[in-house]
Amino acid sequence: MEIGIIGGKGDMGRWFAHFFSQEGYTVHIAHKDEGMSLAEMGARCSVVMVSVPIGVTCEVIEKIGPAMRKDALLMDITSIKAEPVEAMLRSTECDVIGCHPLFGPEVPSLEGYSFVICPARTGKGTWLSWLRTLLRKNGARLVETTPEEHDRFMGIIQGLNHFNTMTFGVAMDALGVDIEALKPFMTPIFEEKIRIIREVFNHNARMYSEILTRNPYLPAILERYEQTVGELKHLIEIRDAQTLQKRLQKAGIRFPAMTKDSPA
Amino acid sequence: MEIGIIGGKGDMGRWFAHFFSQEGYTVHIAHKDEGMSLAEMGARCSVVMVSVPIGVTCEVIEKIGPAMRKDALLMDITSIKAEPVEAMLRSTECDVIGCHPLFGPEVPSLEGYSFVICPARTGKGTWLSWLRTLLRKNGARLVETTPEEHDRFMGIIQGLNHFNTMTFGVAMDALGVDIEALKPFMTPIFEEKIRIIREVFNHNARMYSEILTRNPYLPAILERYEQTVGELKHLIEIRDAQTLQKRLQKAGIRFPAMTKDSPA
Repeated sequence: MEIGIIGGKGDMGRWFAHFFSQEGYTVHIAHKDEGMSLAEMGARCSVVMVSVPIGVTCEVIEKIGPAMRKDALLMDITSIKAEPVEAMLRSTECDVIGCHPLFGPEVPSLEGYSFVICPARTGKGTWLSWLRTLLRKNGARLVETTPEEHDRFMGIIQGLNHFNTMTFGVAMDALGVDIEALKPFMTPIFEEKIRIIREVFNHNARMYSEILTRNPYLPAILERYEQTVGELKHLIEIRDAQTLQKRLQKAGIRFPAMTKDSPA
Repeated sequence: MEIGIIGGKGDMGRWFAHFFSQEGYTVHIAHKDEGMSLAEMGARCSVVMVSVPIGVTCEVIEKIGPAMRKDALLMDITSIKAEPVEAMLRSTECDVIGCHPLFGPEVPSLEGYSFVICPARTGKGTWLSWLRTLLRKNGARLVETTPEEHDRFMGIIQGLNHFNTMTFGVAMDALGVDIEALKPFMTPIFEEKIRIIREVFNHNARMYSEILTRNPYLPAILERYEQTVGELKHLIEIRDAQTLQKRLQKAGIRFPAMTKDSPA
């Protein structure tokens, strides 16, 4: 079976090219103007995976979609699901499954990592069961959901989370903070936050920026975040430690102590 | 030599009582209305350490200060330094060193942990060299600075940092986020943030709230944080991923890749 990966020279594209090769499939890649043409890929491949930056995903989908064979499977692996899944359904008649692998290209295998799939058009279910089997066999934690639920949850898990990281780092930059001078004074929690900032700011700023600007649920979430900032800032300005403490303890109930099954 | 610890039944108080006992000193404790009276402690002890919540530190200092012998050493260990050091200098004539151990009561020893001291009145330097020797001998990373520099740096390391954590957790509570439902979708960075929220919200909400409301540099820092939130939120609302990416990359220069000496 032949599998095509568009964006096959990107970090995740290379990861999946290697993965599918290891699984015994013939892999073709397209990357910008290099590699196989999309017309040939659509004609030859049973499965095509779109692995390009979020900002150009729908554009690429609209090119490959009409070239796909009707008995094929089209997948994308972007961190947003409603928009690309809709574009896939609109531009092709073949099977469509939106994917979001919850890991980066540095992981050695699927073992223990979560992999979200949104089955959108699954025909007789043949492709769906192929994908499920492949992922489970390799030890992925398979999570099946709708594009809407995925994006709503990711509005918190990626959207609010990365926004929280970005505002912390950008505010430190705006304040002219000298990280070297702070080093002798750093606490373990601060060091952890700096590690996260380094990851988000230096590793793949484009991806993180596109995740945030494309999530349809994020603006409403950020509205509430901004309110919270104003409220807690006010408590600090008036030095009301007691009310601040009560707010933390009330919210803390939502974050219970770790259990064996908890991620920590 | 006799050492007194006020707040000696608190987590950090117990830690230091154990530490000084192990070092061969006779330790007396006072805790609310229990243990040795402050009058007796001041008369008997060569060193007194104040280890009570930040909110009552100055009040306790004003009680013990006048009872101290002139040849003694008075220390506090709160996370804010200007206010308690000033209170110690005002209320006693003996030596004064403000301390901030940058670790919690769960650590087994000083080995490898940072310990900030602000020598404020050090007479002939005898107590200062005693304390330096004691801390270094036990492997602490000794950091000496002024109360003002300490508080300015902690405005970022603890103030802005914990504020960033608090707003994330309180906003999730305000949004009614169901952490259990999110679990299958969690990314490693989100899991790390949840661990930090658990620590700040459930472990010692009073201490974290008092650190924030007492830092004199924090209101100005939070002014800038709120501005940053507004600016990045606007970029997300207008879906301007490119400008957001540029802001991250510009700020990212301040957070360079990890080196062997870096905390991460």
